[in-house]
Amino acid sequence: MAARYVFLFGTHPTSSKDILGGKGAGLAQMTKIGLPVPHGFTITTEACGEQWPEGLEAEISQRLVELEAQTGKKFGDAANPLLVSVRSGAAVSMPGMMDTVLNLGLNDTTIEGLKQKTNNPRFAYDSYRRFICMFGNVVMNIQHDKFEHILADIKRKYTRHFDCDLTAEELQEVIREFKALYERETKAPFPMAVMDQLKHAVSAVFSSWNNPRAIYYRKINDIRGLKGTAVTVQEMVFGNTGPRSGTGVGFTRNPSTGEKMPYGEYLVNAQGEDVVAGIRTPNPIPQMERDLPEAFGQLMNVYRVLEEHYKEMQDFEFTIEDGKLYMLQTRTGKRTAHAAVRIAKEMVEEGLITKEEALMRIDPNSLTQLLFPQLVEADKKTKRLLCKGLPASPGAARGKLAFSAEEAIARTHAGEKIILAREETCPDDIEGMNVSQGIVTARGGMTSHAAVVARGMGKCCITGAHDLHIDVANKRITLPDGTHLGNTDIVTLDGGSGEVFLGEVAIQDARVEGAFATIMEWANEIKRLGVRANAETPRDARKAREFGCEGVGLARTEHMFFQGERIWPMREMIIAETVEAREAALAKLLPYQKEDFKAILDIMDGLPVNIRLLDPPLHEFLPTEEKDQIQMAEVMHITVEQVKQLVDNMHEANPMLGFRGCRLGVVYPEINRMQVKAIFEAACELKAEKPAANMHVEVMIPVLAHEVEMKLMRELCVEEAEKVMAAHNIKIPYTVGVMMELPRACLMADHIAKHAEFFSFGTNDLTQTTLGYSRDDAAKFIKKYLERNVYEKDPFQVLDQEGVGQLIRMSLQRGRATRPHLKCGICGEHGGEPSSVAFCHNVGLNYVSCSPFRVPVARLAAARAAIQGKGKAPEVAL
Amino acid sequence: MAARYVFLFGTHPTSSKDILGGKGAGLAQMTKIGLPVPHGFTITTEACGEQWPEGLEAEISQRLVELEAQTGKKFGDAANPLLVSVRSGAAVSMPGMMDTVLNLGLNDTTIEGLKQKTNNPRFAYDSYRRFICMFGNVVMNIQHDKFEHILADIKRKYTRHFDCDLTAEELQEVIREFKALYERETKAPFPMAVMDQLKHAVSAVFSSWNNPRAIYYRKINDIRGLKGTAVTVQEMVFGNTGPRSGTGVGFTRNPSTGEKMPYGEYLVNAQGEDVVAGIRTPNPIPQMERDLPEAFGQLMNVYRVLEEHYKEMQDFEFTIEDGKLYMLQTRTGKRTAHAAVRIAKEMVEEGLITKEEALMRIDPNSLTQLLFPQLVEADKKTKRLLCKGLPASPGAARGKLAFSAEEAIARTHAGEKIILAREETCPDDIEGMNVSQGIVTARGGMTSHAAVVARGMGKCCITGAHDLHIDVANKRITLPDGTHLGNTDIVTLDGGSGEVFLGEVAIQDARVEGAFATIMEWANEIKRLGVRANAETPRDARKAREFGCEGVGLARTEHMFFQGERIWPMREMIIAETVEAREAALAKLLPYQKEDFKAILDIMDGLPVNIRLLDPPLHEFLPTEEKDQIQMAEVMHITVEQVKQLVDNMHEANPMLGFRGCRLGVVYPEINRMQVKAIFEAACELKAEKPAANMHVEVMIPVLAHEVEMKLMRELCVEEAEKVMAAHNIKIPYTVGVMMELPRACLMADHIAKHAEFFSFGTNDLTQTTLGYSRDDAAKFIKKYLERNVYEKDPFQVLDQEGVGQLIRMSLQRGRATRPHLKCGICGEHGGEPSSVAFCHNVGLNYVSCSPFRVPVARLAAARAAIQGKGKAPEVAL
Repeated sequence: MAARYVFLFGTHPTSSKDILGGKGAGLAQMTKIGLPVPHGFTITTEACGEQWPEGLEAEISQRLVELEAQTGKKFGDAANPLLVSVRSGAAVSMPGMMDTVLNLGLNDTTIEGLKQKTNNPRFAYDSYRRFICMFGNVVMNIQHDKFEHILADIKRKYTRHFDCDLTAEELQEVIREFKALYERETKAPFPMAVMDQLKHAVSAVFSSWNNPRAIYYRKINDIRGLKGTAVTVQEMVFGNTGPRSGTGVGFTRNPSTGEKMPYGEYLVNAQGEDVVAGIRTPNPIPQMERDLPEAFGQLMNVYRVLEEHYKEMQDFEFTIEDGKLYMLQTRTGKRTAHAAVRIAKEMVEEGLITKEEALMRIDPNSLTQLLFPQLVEADKKTKRLLCKGLPASPGAARGKLAFSAEEAIARTHAGEKIILAREETCPDDIEGMNVSQGIVTARGGMTSHAAVVARGMGKCCITGAHDLHIDVANKRITLPDGTHLGNTDIVTLDGGSGEVFLGEVAIQDARVEGAFATIMEWANEIKRLGVRANAETPRDARKAREFGCEGVGLARTEHMFFQGERIWPMREMIIAETVEAREAALAKLLPYQKEDFKAILDIMDGLPVNIRLLDPPLHEFLPTEEKDQIQMAEVMHITVEQVKQLVDNMHEANPMLGFRGCRLGVVYPEINRMQVKAIFEAACELKAEKPAANMHVEVMIPVLAHEVEMKLMRELCVEEAEKVMAAHNIKIPYTVGVMMELPRACLMADHIAKHAEFFSFGTNDLTQTTLGYSRDDAAKFIKKYLERNVYEKDPFQVLDQEGVGQLIRMSLQRGRATRPHLKCGICGEHGGEPSSVAFCHNVGLNYVSCSPFRVPVARLAAARAAIQGKGKAPEVAL
Repeated sequence: MAARYVFLFGTHPTSSKDILGGKGAGLAQMTKIGLPVPHGFTITTEACGEQWPEGLEAEISQRLVELEAQTGKKFGDAANPLLVSVRSGAAVSMPGMMDTVLNLGLNDTTIEGLKQKTNNPRFAYDSYRRFICMFGNVVMNIQHDKFEHILADIKRKYTRHFDCDLTAEELQEVIREFKALYERETKAPFPMAVMDQLKHAVSAVFSSWNNPRAIYYRKINDIRGLKGTAVTVQEMVFGNTGPRSGTGVGFTRNPSTGEKMPYGEYLVNAQGEDVVAGIRTPNPIPQMERDLPEAFGQLMNVYRVLEEHYKEMQDFEFTIEDGKLYMLQTRTGKRTAHAAVRIAKEMVEEGLITKEEALMRIDPNSLTQLLFPQLVEADKKTKRLLCKGLPASPGAARGKLAFSAEEAIARTHAGEKIILAREETCPDDIEGMNVSQGIVTARGGMTSHAAVVARGMGKCCITGAHDLHIDVANKRITLPDGTHLGNTDIVTLDGGSGEVFLGEVAIQDARVEGAFATIMEWANEIKRLGVRANAETPRDARKAREFGCEGVGLARTEHMFFQGERIWPMREMIIAETVEAREAALAKLLPYQKEDFKAILDIMDGLPVNIRLLDPPLHEFLPTEEKDQIQMAEVMHITVEQVKQLVDNMHEANPMLGFRGCRLGVVYPEINRMQVKAIFEAACELKAEKPAANMHVEVMIPVLAHEVEMKLMRELCVEEAEKVMAAHNIKIPYTVGVMMELPRACLMADHIAKHAEFFSFGTNDLTQTTLGYSRDDAAKFIKKYLERNVYEKDPFQVLDQEGVGQLIRMSLQRGRATRPHLKCGICGEHGGEPSSVAFCHNVGLNYVSCSPFRVPVARLAAARAAIQGKGKAPEVAL
């Protein structure tokens, strides 16, 4: 009978995890490459289901006969019994499922054979009682406690302290009681027929695939498209037969540092479950050379053979029975980002893998771990965890609590380290955020104001920490249990996990190793997509360049106006009632803008710099709190009433869809004229000072929906630019283009491209308008939406490829139909998210732009997309 | 030489207005059909431009020769001079352009001939001085005042009271002075060469086409695509040669009522300009039978021939010279909406035109004039006009000012008639709006909250009356001139013009004549598009049915919750913290909803009723003003602090893009469950009470962006509906569909149509999200946008066909690809706007839905679209 569902190790034509499960595939592969694996067979995932497929039982019987032949033992035989382990194993490891039943095949008859063969009745009875307990618990779902209670009662009865103190006779009493428990719970005697034992165990594994824990685990880990679990049945080997036996786990490299060395730990005279139980402390592998010298040599061979075969760091389990080493499992080892980078690089150098393979081995998202300071894990455990919010911006930060931007600024200047705690942040808070060590907000999501600004600043930030009830007026935080925190309390933020701790947790600096640089170079060799940074301060720009950006994809010009004294001429401009008064105020702002632009252009020498004209509605520059309004009235020599009236008049029902971006430019062209003038004066002055400077300026028009807007704004930019350049007698290469952030702009891309020299997709706002979600308000329902599977991922984090993606595709097709080779990029938050970066590569964007700290992530993601799409042309030709 | 640019009347192969201008075409046509027209020729629009085309001058000379032959007179001849008028005339009448020069051809020589021929030197000199003045003013742009001053000086010198008192000698002095003035102003003597006079006059007409006034006129009247103006040169006839002469204007029907009767007025012994000058009062036409009996007979023939030929009401000018009637102009007559409807209907009955032609003769927008009470025009002039806002909702209203909804309610209950004056309105104001006679707001546009709600209520409303500074706290309005109005002042609103008057202006009731009903029936026979109404109260529903709606296209369910006591269980629902508490509050709301639904379903018996589930974010139901918050705290037995906290917590940055519509349903399904239950209980109870009732319920899901939302909401609706119907053992036909108002829904229409049985385009919100414009905030820039030609029309009033229209097309194509015959409609404000209705017809929607008062407009617009697209299949098959 040809194998259809059940295969002896190494006999399946493939070693596919999908079919054999991770465990079965590893055992099959190790068998094929000659490593010592106890004999056994695997029932494939294709047999997994509520009903056993036709012929499965017959096939299992057949394989058992073959296994008996290989082992020389007989299943259920009184003299020379074959004992097996039964393990589940899907293509990915899944803790929610049934795990392992050991010693299957023991019954009142075969126990005799085991006793005689091992000449150790105590060992045999101990194995038997373990089997009944495991089978009862794991296969029949009898609560483990109930077995433990019986064991505890009998130990008490005979005043035995440890399990191992029980005698063979006492263990027989345990076995009797366990059987009685089993019968009470299942209404059937413990099965003596070994084939029944096996069938029950296999069915239990199959049905565990669909138990709620397993379903939940697959859901939260985003595991899809698997057929089911496989079942592996394997001859038992025993690590607990004496001092020449043992059990352990190994890693072919150090999973924490990546160093190439035999890594792992073992126990002498123990079974795998003893390691898990944690009663004895395992020894490091090198010590085995002394403890179990014959097995150590075999183990060193295993390290070599596994890496040679898998060309990947392996995490494996082994058992040594009377000096002979057996392999029980191998799989790709989990590792830290540091280790991943080092291993990938060194494996290329060792000739094991190609550069492409190396890049495919590193999770782009994990790279952020390499860039930020981090909490010392061990120290976290010593502190009280106050709450968990969203890991909005990575890193670590600690300090005393402050409850307003003003307080944060004042106390920072007084020398304190501050954590700014806010209900949510607003543009007024930017300076306060900037001086603080980190930010925590009670409201807002991953793309709230606080999150976006903090990521831009590379500053640790936790948002949506709902458990913090922040009372700004009384400078107090109340926790659900009633605890109060005030402004003398120190907290520590873990921006990587979203955890907030009470007190000072130790922080370690980022360790950027040499291997990281090498990997990033390889990424650059391979990727097609450009990677730029969103940067609007010289500090950001320098950071971005350090991380290898290829230009600035978005320099927002409005944040510059919030800093310090600059807000005053801005407000003067807003209250101006004539073009002349507005221009006078603008003239005061010009030097500030110019200064910023000049610094950024200088830092980005040789690379393009995309500067976006004023984006937010003007009311964002007005104070909303009364005391600030009073201050404004004083500074501006107007009444508080007038300030309030102004704030009221400028109030907008939906500022996201309000009087902003190029709408300001169409109505008050003088604002944008000043900005363009500042850009080109900065460039011309820099060129005059440094004749070798190599600049390319891109002027970007935001919030645009109509071809005519583009035409008007383009005319304005060109006019102003040419005027400045003529006055300086200097030519700066420049282009004028559009931020694509409204559906109408995408729909009209063919028309807009007549006047626009580049498109840059502002996918944050494009997501807001296309989906009709306000980024600031969506937190109220987005969690439920993910739970109810409306969206698979938060569309503000992972680009909504089927919705928003259609608009991007359409824009590319239409835009490039009008203007071939139209330069197209993305500058939303998605520009640093790997799956979105891959989308950008595939559709044919020229570049992505992201916050400086995501630049390495985007570079790697871009390279991986190029590798995965090898040879495939972009959907819309570049 | 063949005519190319210059044609004697009736010799051009066509009578095209585009080529001959309106005036030239009318004269040509009247010549062809044998009416008495003084001879002349027309220079076509094709000759209009900065330079005269090659050969034009020669052609004019040639035509003059022919004209001389026809008239037996000679141009410039001393004995028998030909005098002509020169008039401009584009395809549409355009007041900005040069109008008329009379008596051209007079000079110091030909004046002698005129003297001798008329034997009336005074008449001749009077004609000459008029010519010099007209030529100087109209052709050479010399200020008219300057001529008037000379005339006044000479009258004073000779103590003459009227112009006509001047003697021939005195007129000669006027002529001398006029010539001197001419020479001073133009630095050239008055031209004696008659050909020069003609050339100057023709050039002046051509260049007046592009003077700023003409350009402005074309712009504000949306006149496009014309080549230029034509010039008509015609032999002079004189109505001022004696008591057998005269001049007048006629209409073939009464332009005010539409009655078929000789209508018009005339003056004996006068020229056209005397009628315009307004010195003498003209007589009504019937009186002419007595005054000028021989001409009266000729005139009656003209009435008959004009209508027989044009099959349209004509507005014409005539002159009678010594008993002989001459036609100087004819054109289609302007008329009121009342007249338009009556004329169209009666002309069909008279066999003059077809029903289709009749419908094409009526401007759909004008029909709203027939539905609302109106101010008596004459009485408006007697009152002070306070300011002008936007005509947001038509009709007329008057009453005393009230400054809050509460005040309006209280004072209405006390028996006063109230005009509600607000900065802008919010949903809290609805009851106050409902009880008021009319509403005026200082802010907001044509689609602001006040405008939309008032139109829905059929209530007179003026928005954006910026001149009103409303001080709610002090219950006072201040006008720019400092005038104060308080709550004892009466104002009158004209919703048709946006004018606000001080005091009581007389109001007349709507006059819906029988012809209107006939026209509407014909529209129904011809149109393909269904016309439904947006109606959510029994009052609206009745009104809509009265106006001939074919169902309800949108019944909003949230307004029902604002009325009176209903707000309290709604608020109870909002503050509920458990599903149970929420359900308990919802149970209190259910009877209210049911009651409303039952009434509407009853009124709409036999027609479909589309009910939209809860749309706005819940915070709209919470009070924002402190005193209301205090009241809420009292009623709900919570602290004011808690109310404020709640309001704060629920505050949204951009409510338009917030937690609303089906998002509420996904997170709190119990709300929508209650609504669906109420709908089907209403329907089942009605059916039980009236077994003949014929209902079709459409349940509409709002603010939907994703297929899964549709799936979840559909399941909810079906489950609840089936449960209720099973309990009542009654089947009500129903469908579940989607409000298409987000770009993502349109992009994913093929997927959404799997679960949706109809699409209804909510073009207000779809415009907001596609263009990125908040309806409430766009007023700040939209005016400038129209000025700068970004949009031709306000996209909230006239559908943005090229942007939003693409999404509608795409939805239809994709939706019907998944589900053929998918029923598709539109329920935004655009559903009652004629050009948008035509778009809906052309792309293949099944119906439009609009406010009750726009139903007749939409019906006519739909019929016109069907006529214009005769035989053309819809772009997407129905």
